[in-house]
Amino acid sequence: MTNSKDVSPTGKHLNFSVEEYNTRLTKIRTEMRHRDLDLLLLTDPCNIYYTTGYDAWSFYVPQCILISASEVEPVWIGREMDRTGALITSTLSENSIVSYDDKFVQSQQYHPMSVMAEQIRARFGSDLHIGIEMDSYYMDIQSYIKMQSELPLAKISDASLLVNWVRAIKSDTELKYMREASTLVENAMQAAIDLIEPGVRECDVAATAYSNLVSSNPDFAGAYTSTPPLIPAGERLNTPHLSWNSSRYENNTQVNLELMACRNRYHMPLGRSLYLGKPNATLRKIESAIVEGLDAALSFIKPGVRACDVEATWQKAASKHNVQKSARCGYSLGIAYPPTCGEKTVSLRPDDKTVLQEGMSFHLMPAIWHEGNSLVITEPFVVTKTGVETFCKFPRKLFEK
Amino acid sequence: MTNSKDVSPTGKHLNFSVEEYNTRLTKIRTEMRHRDLDLLLLTDPCNIYYTTGYDAWSFYVPQCILISASEVEPVWIGREMDRTGALITSTLSENSIVSYDDKFVQSQQYHPMSVMAEQIRARFGSDLHIGIEMDSYYMDIQSYIKMQSELPLAKISDASLLVNWVRAIKSDTELKYMREASTLVENAMQAAIDLIEPGVRECDVAATAYSNLVSSNPDFAGAYTSTPPLIPAGERLNTPHLSWNSSRYENNTQVNLELMACRNRYHMPLGRSLYLGKPNATLRKIESAIVEGLDAALSFIKPGVRACDVEATWQKAASKHNVQKSARCGYSLGIAYPPTCGEKTVSLRPDDKTVLQEGMSFHLMPAIWHEGNSLVITEPFVVTKTGVETFCKFPRKLFEK
Repeated sequence: MTNSKDVSPTGKHLNFSVEEYNTRLTKIRTEMRHRDLDLLLLTDPCNIYYTTGYDAWSFYVPQCILISASEVEPVWIGREMDRTGALITSTLSENSIVSYDDKFVQSQQYHPMSVMAEQIRARFGSDLHIGIEMDSYYMDIQSYIKMQSELPLAKISDASLLVNWVRAIKSDTELKYMREASTLVENAMQAAIDLIEPGVRECDVAATAYSNLVSSNPDFAGAYTSTPPLIPAGERLNTPHLSWNSSRYENNTQVNLELMACRNRYHMPLGRSLYLGKPNATLRKIESAIVEGLDAALSFIKPGVRACDVEATWQKAASKHNVQKSARCGYSLGIAYPPTCGEKTVSLRPDDKTVLQEGMSFHLMPAIWHEGNSLVITEPFVVTKTGVETFCKFPRKLFEK
Repeated sequence: MTNSKDVSPTGKHLNFSVEEYNTRLTKIRTEMRHRDLDLLLLTDPCNIYYTTGYDAWSFYVPQCILISASEVEPVWIGREMDRTGALITSTLSENSIVSYDDKFVQSQQYHPMSVMAEQIRARFGSDLHIGIEMDSYYMDIQSYIKMQSELPLAKISDASLLVNWVRAIKSDTELKYMREASTLVENAMQAAIDLIEPGVRECDVAATAYSNLVSSNPDFAGAYTSTPPLIPAGERLNTPHLSWNSSRYENNTQVNLELMACRNRYHMPLGRSLYLGKPNATLRKIESAIVEGLDAALSFIKPGVRACDVEATWQKAASKHNVQKSARCGYSLGIAYPPTCGEKTVSLRPDDKTVLQEGMSFHLMPAIWHEGNSLVITEPFVVTKTGVETFCKFPRKLFEK
């Protein structure tokens, strides 16, 4: 799928064509103009990747992309040791890659924002309206206070989710990567279910899941994911965010598996539950509620329906079995870095009136955890011209062994 | 190693004795009183774990621990679906576990800080001096602005690293977990080195590394780590933060392996380089510089020496081979969650005058990346009464195959 337009200024292969990056920037600049923003300072690694291709495990130190409303190349600013990573992975030319000395890292004396502010002043001026992501994990309060003091003439606004919303509708190449990730997560889920039985250790299942998530396809690799395998069992079932230990599974035990694969930073989660033994009637009732709720929601979804109505459709189907879920039943899906695979834009819940459009992708997860019993059957999907395509084709049921 | 004091109020097993948690809180409260803080609001998951034992993959939504300067139990505030995780993993009684409804999650209308502020007002009052972690990945700028508006009478100060500094000196139990993690990372490093040869795919090595990091010990499990395996090769060698793809290794290729294991959140990183073929004289020279620098630094370290002098000792030994490193050559080590395994307190670099004490642990990593050539040989260690103990006993050399 590579063509001559998938090559960066430094001669490296890019995951998307230069045209696709340009289209993304055009959409972002259009939105910037709507908000009268002169400059956008992005720190969310998802948005840095989306706009420039930069992809490295360097977001634990301050780094950013500057996007001007005028048509100049974005600027990457990061740590000196990550400069080569920017040259290799990004669309940017050398002149737009600026790095700071290591003395700025986790220092009580120096702060990388002083370098960023200096670049802003030198390249774009001082009297600017700058948008930043005030919901970013990777721009801390110290950086914000430092930015205010270094750029006293600037007006600083919250531009959280500006780029996330542009990301909402996926291109064909993005969907290709998501479909590739789906094969990895299906392989991992199948391998984990095959392995689990009484006497097997939870950590051995985690090992198998990890292994399949990264290397189970002969043609491409899975990358590290935003979230590790979450495979609670026993007393840890009634909450989604605990994971494995070295316990051995026993008979009459349930395991909830939430796995996700990543292909070129595009994530594909999948959740299933497995019961070692004979599930009781309550679990079977919840299974029916979730499966019928999934069927109903997936049949309902097409371009033009609202997020809240998807949720209502699931709740209505599940309520026939007296099952309710208090948390949202899905979220938008795409590029991810730790700590979350969600895009943070659309939630499938009562107060979200977003109208679904073709190319939007979601993780539909009407999972039950803290409502007394626990069961996980999820379905990632993309909205098509006329309905939905589920990325995975994994049996929608409570597995039993 | 469990005793009756390792049990939480909800009857669950804790990783540390109640006495150890109490000692930690006493040290933290002493420091709070030095700073005239009435309340500490912690969001760094490392510090939440350190003070209460709470351990779940839930830090991607706002959550906190409130620690009062008076001797009342800390309070956990988090998402409703994570309440069970707090009951299971933390030292806290039910009355000190407060959860917010899912509607507050990634919403444009509601913010979890309003629940946190309400709890602060109700439990501790309004006219307070509150310390927050302004360097935390997990308290964003929106939360800070919301906190200011919700608590107008409070004085809010930066208490970044307050708890991190208390964490600097490790207890015997902490060191036990770090030693356990060291066996996992050594297993993973050996398995990766054994596997790598021409024709093998990089992602298959990543799979082997992951597998060994979590399940290579018969007696205990490794947990998910703060950082994935970083195993750059080829053109990606000259930067530390790129990782695997599906390429097959070729002859005359170098691979840099940076792996880390985690045991009960205590991390153990280890770095080594492997050359497929015959390394050239330059690489061998860098190897000598790093190995002699490590030897010199490790011989020099004992309680009472300064961080900067450790760095100078390494640089002096390496300079005999005309090798220099511009970035810090080490950092303090202990509890970690994504995105970094460092404790963010002590750096081994020229401007850090911290005096090393018995029980402090570090990752000594005089690795060379962006200085033209690249080589990684690292050594995690703890300062003992008279010198150092290296956690790993892995050969200190450039591996050759």
